[in-house]
Amino acid sequence: MTHPSFPGAVRTGIGTDVHRLVPRSDDDPPMQLAGLSWPEEQQRLEGHSDADVAAHAACDALLAAAGLGDLGSNFGTADPAWAGAAGVALLGETVRRVRAAGFAVGNVSVQVVGNRPRLGARRTDAEAALSAAVGAPVSVSATTTDGLGLTGRGEGVAAIATALVVRQEPEEAP
Amino acid sequence: MTHPSFPGAVRTGIGTDVHRLVPRSDDDPPMQLAGLSWPEEQQRLEGHSDADVAAHAACDALLAAAGLGDLGSNFGTADPAWAGAAGVALLGETVRRVRAAGFAVGNVSVQVVGNRPRLGARRTDAEAALSAAVGAPVSVSATTTDGLGLTGRGEGVAAIATALVVRQEPEEAP
Amino acid sequence: MTHPSFPGAVRTGIGTDVHRLVPRSDDDPPMQLAGLSWPEEQQRLEGHSDADVAAHAACDALLAAAGLGDLGSNFGTADPAWAGAAGVALLGETVRRVRAAGFAVGNVSVQVVGNRPRLGARRTDAEAALSAAVGAPVSVSATTTDGLGLTGRGEGVAAIATALVVRQEPEEAP
Ligand SMILES: [Zn+2]
Ligand SMILES: [Zn+2]
Ligand SMILES: [Zn+2]
Repeated sequence: MTHPSFPGAVRTGIGTDVHRLVPRSDDDPPMQLAGLSWPEEQQRLEGHSDADVAAHAACDALLAAAGLGDLGSNFGTADPAWAGAAGVALLGETVRRVRAAGFAVGNVSVQVVGNRPRLGARRTDAEAALSAAVGAPVSVSATTTDGLGLTGRGEGVAAIATALVVRQEPEEAP
Repeated sequence: MTHPSFPGAVRTGIGTDVHRLVPRSDDDPPMQLAGLSWPEEQQRLEGHSDADVAAHAACDALLAAAGLGDLGSNFGTADPAWAGAAGVALLGETVRRVRAAGFAVGNVSVQVVGNRPRLGARRTDAEAALSAAVGAPVSVSATTTDGLGLTGRGEGVAAIATALVVRQEPEEAP
Repeated sequence: MTHPSFPGAVRTGIGTDVHRLVPRSDDDPPMQLAGLSWPEEQQRLEGHSDADVAAHAACDALLAAAGLGDLGSNFGTADPAWAGAAGVALLGETVRRVRAAGFAVGNVSVQVVGNRPRLGARRTDAEAALSAAVGAPVSVSATTTDGLGLTGRGEGVAAIATALVVRQEPEEAP
């Protein structure tokens, strides 16, 4: 059992991510975002692994909360094992590392910022997909920037996440 | 009494918002921001309800922390009841829903990002207005982006908020 | 000892900062970022004090968590004492004020957003420098925005931070 009765028992982490929206040809896989596939979108997100900005922001928030570095130091471009990995796969492995370091995940909150896709209709599906990957509650929300900035012009999609982790009691020596 | 002695007892939420700055004619109401009216500003914020980005970001952070969706799913454009609502009214109703879901609000932190208005002189008034709406401490801070990006060019004002909520013990059955 | 067993015992704060990247002449000091000096960079960050966006975002997150205002209200341009202060000096003084207000720092998470410098190779040095200034764990991470927006165009560097502070028990009367 956990007793967060000292400073540092509960820890916060933050992460943001941005990937570019590019036209999607017939050969391209569909846009991946917030743990879901969006086959009806005419664009896709471009970048590292499947470019799922919501999953990536959540990974960075969790890694930071646990003091374990960031996406680059854990799953960097030098490591081919993760080059094409799905965002939820990175998220699952992130949580495994967070737990191995002695933390339980409290919860994660991630907000997607962009014009497309319209997340509202599938928001609870996204929460289910990301919560399953994390094994703890993940809230997913969405907003726009009123036509302004990189997301308002439709150049890309951003995500921002916070996470709380809780230090577990040290394992008993055998 | 609350015992946050398990993972998930304390939960984090994040929210951001951006609205456009537009010229204000004599017929327009004054800019609303951070729970205050700014009658000396020559511009106003345009958008959903009163476009109070600070109140909106705080709402999204609180809703996300409690796992209750976002502004769009709670007060969407389809619902005329909230079309012209003040940001502090949305914030008050948000807190009512957070509490009804079994959470107490720990605190909220919101940072306003923009050139105008100069929030410093009325920062503590803004904190009082938003804290009254939430019934818990709301910190208000302000910064700029050194002339860069959408806020630096004066195209709009952004806000970013985090919230902590604490799970209350289950109600006793009668 | 601290017993965060009531809402508000643990408090969250958020802070962001942006400074402009400018060419660095031979007479200019090197770029300061995340508590480190970057003498090999051809550019520097311009702005208040040493323009260390990571330290500044961390200060704002800590001040907000403790309900103590922001960088401007604590170390404003009106106060020449802090005009040229290093970011880590501001951070140290921030923590002194947070503690004087009755809070212990739980942890801080700060993400640097920009193309330059490449933080990865010195990420743990940055964590050591900022953690020493804070006296509690500071996580440092880095990301880019895929060539988009003010940081993607290399106009500036941004940072975003969250902090947790924990209310200490009231001092015993003598
Ligand atoms: Zn990414
Ligand atoms: Zn809004
Ligand atoms: Zn600064």
